[in-house]
Amino acid sequence: MPTRQRVRQFLEHRFVQRAVIALIVVNAVTIGCETSAYLMERAGGLLHVIDRVALAVFTVEIAARLYAYGREFWTDPWNWFDTVIVGLALIPASGPTSVLRALRILRALRLVSAVPSMRRVVGALLTAVPGMASIIGLLLLMIYIAAVIATKLFGEIVPERFDALPTSLFTLFQIMTGDDWGNVAQEVMEQKPWAWVFFIAYILISTFVALNLFIAVVVNAMNDAEPSPAEVRAQADIEALKQDLAAMNAKLDQLLARAPQAQLTANGRTHAD
Amino acid sequence: MPTRQRVRQFLEHRFVQRAVIALIVVNAVTIGCETSAYLMERAGGLLHVIDRVALAVFTVEIAARLYAYGREFWTDPWNWFDTVIVGLALIPASGPTSVLRALRILRALRLVSAVPSMRRVVGALLTAVPGMASIIGLLLLMIYIAAVIATKLFGEIVPERFDALPTSLFTLFQIMTGDDWGNVAQEVMEQKPWAWVFFIAYILISTFVALNLFIAVVVNAMNDAEPSPAEVRAQADIEALKQDLAAMNAKLDQLLARAPQAQLTANGRTHAD
Amino acid sequence: MPTRQRVRQFLEHRFVQRAVIALIVVNAVTIGCETSAYLMERAGGLLHVIDRVALAVFTVEIAARLYAYGREFWTDPWNWFDTVIVGLALIPASGPTSVLRALRILRALRLVSAVPSMRRVVGALLTAVPGMASIIGLLLLMIYIAAVIATKLFGEIVPERFDALPTSLFTLFQIMTGDDWGNVAQEVMEQKPWAWVFFIAYILISTFVALNLFIAVVVNAMNDAEPSPAEVRAQADIEALKQDLAAMNAKLDQLLARAPQAQLTANGRTHAD
Amino acid sequence: MPTRQRVRQFLEHRFVQRAVIALIVVNAVTIGCETSAYLMERAGGLLHVIDRVALAVFTVEIAARLYAYGREFWTDPWNWFDTVIVGLALIPASGPTSVLRALRILRALRLVSAVPSMRRVVGALLTAVPGMASIIGLLLLMIYIAAVIATKLFGEIVPERFDALPTSLFTLFQIMTGDDWGNVAQEVMEQKPWAWVFFIAYILISTFVALNLFIAVVVNAMNDAEPSPAEVRAQADIEALKQDLAAMNAKLDQLLARAPQAQLTANGRTHAD
Repeated sequence: MPTRQRVRQFLEHRFVQRAVIALIVVNAVTIGCETSAYLMERAGGLLHVIDRVALAVFTVEIAARLYAYGREFWTDPWNWFDTVIVGLALIPASGPTSVLRALRILRALRLVSAVPSMRRVVGALLTAVPGMASIIGLLLLMIYIAAVIATKLFGEIVPERFDALPTSLFTLFQIMTGDDWGNVAQEVMEQKPWAWVFFIAYILISTFVALNLFIAVVVNAMNDAEPSPAEVRAQADIEALKQDLAAMNAKLDQLLARAPQAQLTANGRTHAD
Repeated sequence: MPTRQRVRQFLEHRFVQRAVIALIVVNAVTIGCETSAYLMERAGGLLHVIDRVALAVFTVEIAARLYAYGREFWTDPWNWFDTVIVGLALIPASGPTSVLRALRILRALRLVSAVPSMRRVVGALLTAVPGMASIIGLLLLMIYIAAVIATKLFGEIVPERFDALPTSLFTLFQIMTGDDWGNVAQEVMEQKPWAWVFFIAYILISTFVALNLFIAVVVNAMNDAEPSPAEVRAQADIEALKQDLAAMNAKLDQLLARAPQAQLTANGRTHAD
Repeated sequence: MPTRQRVRQFLEHRFVQRAVIALIVVNAVTIGCETSAYLMERAGGLLHVIDRVALAVFTVEIAARLYAYGREFWTDPWNWFDTVIVGLALIPASGPTSVLRALRILRALRLVSAVPSMRRVVGALLTAVPGMASIIGLLLLMIYIAAVIATKLFGEIVPERFDALPTSLFTLFQIMTGDDWGNVAQEVMEQKPWAWVFFIAYILISTFVALNLFIAVVVNAMNDAEPSPAEVRAQADIEALKQDLAAMNAKLDQLLARAPQAQLTANGRTHAD
Repeated sequence: MPTRQRVRQFLEHRFVQRAVIALIVVNAVTIGCETSAYLMERAGGLLHVIDRVALAVFTVEIAARLYAYGREFWTDPWNWFDTVIVGLALIPASGPTSVLRALRILRALRLVSAVPSMRRVVGALLTAVPGMASIIGLLLLMIYIAAVIATKLFGEIVPERFDALPTSLFTLFQIMTGDDWGNVAQEVMEQKPWAWVFFIAYILISTFVALNLFIAVVVNAMNDAEPSPAEVRAQADIEALKQDLAAMNAKLDQLLARAPQAQLTANGRTHAD
């Protein structure tokens, strides 16, 4: 057996896969512990070692998979996902890259690619996205238009909410989630009493579009769902009907084969009509 | 080929349509940029020129469509939509018409009429509206009644929320969206401790009606949705059954045509029973 | 034609029914106008007269219906509804009965009983309620239990939220709607840091139960909904299959009637097997 | 009749079961009354006595059930539920166990196990849980990752929200419910203006995952729901088709049995084709 084959078998062994999952969980916990000053003081060294070991194991594992599967490795998007996540951690994080260090916890996302049932759920979530593209586009267009209008009309009145396009976009996203919109609207309405038209129209339209986004997802999910028991039963019944009909059809063929021409020979044309 | 025909062909050319879409997007971006004092200072002239050019192109395009399609032009509501939006921008906006200037960004909505998939989505959204008319009416009636009651009962206690019908309508719309209703209710309850009856009843009823509004939309969408795979399969199966039956029917006809009268001739009436 | 019959015809005349609807709307508007001090000053007398006239007309209309339909009148719950609402307005509202005066606007609810499509919608909403009884009971039980626990545990820490059972019930209803619960929880957690267990458990459980209440309503509505086009088509197809089968059955009967016993007579028992 | 049998009959008697339900309700009310200082002062002794009596009755009832059903008792999870709840109340609650005393109200939950329709509803709710396990796992993973990132990045800026992992978890749960997230985000953005990326991404992803959790529950509920009238009718129609086919099949068998070999005997092989 070639080495590649053996590495592959090793990687696909249930025990190895569970060990990897366990290590992902342990690593996620240790990175979580690193946020605690108390734990860092007492067990900082240990946490650091575990983190290094985990990273080394993940790196080796991905290298092994790359070796074992060759080109095939790159056909599975989950492999890209793993590579990017582990790769992130290998970038030397010195200086002001606290963000990069914080993103190390993204390694816990490898749990998704390592546990098949999670993989399936995320896959299902992602397949729902393309069907939503048009409505999402509509929603973004709407927020953009509302943000430009709000910046122009309310930018000088309530600058901390609407002074520039990015601020307005944030505020309008917040209003769309329904958070604290009453106060924002009232601040504006103190100077422009007619501003309620803008806010109420925005809330109604964005809620309506978001609702339809939601419905598109639901209808999609319904269609992808397993058939209901009633449908399964109807299916089985129709299958039975089909078989009944096939049997009857065969009998009719037999009847047809036997019955007719004999009499033609004996009596001549008798079916004038 | 008459000129009208040629103009029509030109307007319907894929390249022209994409150019229009691109110009709509560019124009939306430049209008957005105009909200930035920084960009206006450096590139204000350019932004202004682009805006003028875009407006000119849109005006010419609509005039061309009007010429090319004649009366037919007015049969498509999207053409009305485009005409109104571009027309708005042609109104000279001098003096205190900052609102009109702000509404120029509505031109970005032309993206909806220019991109077929967005057109379809908006069309689908709008077809859902008539079926909701009764429930929307009920909701409005309910809010109006609650606003009159609230104005009379709480108008003197919490005037900044309920001093007049419009204020109450706004506050009750805000309460219906669930924003900050606890504080509003507590302000009132400090003086009228039984006011919780009003607020809780209002929230329960409005939530229940809104929920049913939502359900009406969902049920509607479900009915308009593509048939599910199970339904498609059932459909195909029933189609197959139909064809089986037709074949069997033909065979029965053959049997009937051949079998019977022959024997009558030979043996006389034999089917006493 | 007896008088009763005539009164009935008059009441059911389209013109009369529309007039009543118009009067309901006008009356709703005038009661709304009465909340405006400005309008009361200028047109208070007129508003008052319209209100009196409307009330008189409604009273006469109900009396006429009572006369025309006799006992039958009381079999329609909408008639009870109209009677109670108009009856409320006849109670002399002197002294501190500002509440009663405020409730006069409930007369606008007669719009629901007068417009058939609204009647249908409200009817549909109400039929959904019995199916929800068990889940509503569960929800109330849950809120009650949580309120008793919260009163005992947090009553002394945050008395303005949890000092007694009614206050706790209100606060927990507010938390269930998701309004401002973070602040309530944090006030408590300042002294009882473990209180997050209570709040998060309460939010998760109440959301889950409310979600199931919602699902019960949706499933109900789906079942009551018109069959989908796919179902209608399947229904028609099955109907066609049925007729095909009936036709084939008739042909088989004909075949059976003609074919058999004749040969028995001629050749003796030939179908040994 | 053995004693066990008699005890069982007694326990299952409608009157006894209703009495137990009534006692649960009464006990729930008295425990609620105990939260009122006013009532405790006047009727504290009575409330206490009722509570003791109820507890005694519940203990005896469970002991009787244990005696009557023997081992079978432990096969019903509702019995475990009742035993734990009543058992909790028997733990002597002295000293700082105010929590234990507060949990006595959990006895009201026995209403769920005692009323069959509630039992069914809760059973239905619980069966929905396993199907949601993967998505709940995904949600928890996501919140954990977000909490670690938020603690590292924002812990020093807004310590009262993100100083440690538990605080961050609480804050992020609060943000997921949409409560007051705008303020939290703005506090952070004052120092890290790019923080909106984190908050908006977190809200979008958590909403999307929660939405899919919700959809999973709905689709589940739809599948478990009674078949719709259209499905019931289709079912009946297919059943009728089946019977038609069976009848036709029998007739064909008759035809086949009678028609053929007779002619073979008379005319020799006639069906060359």
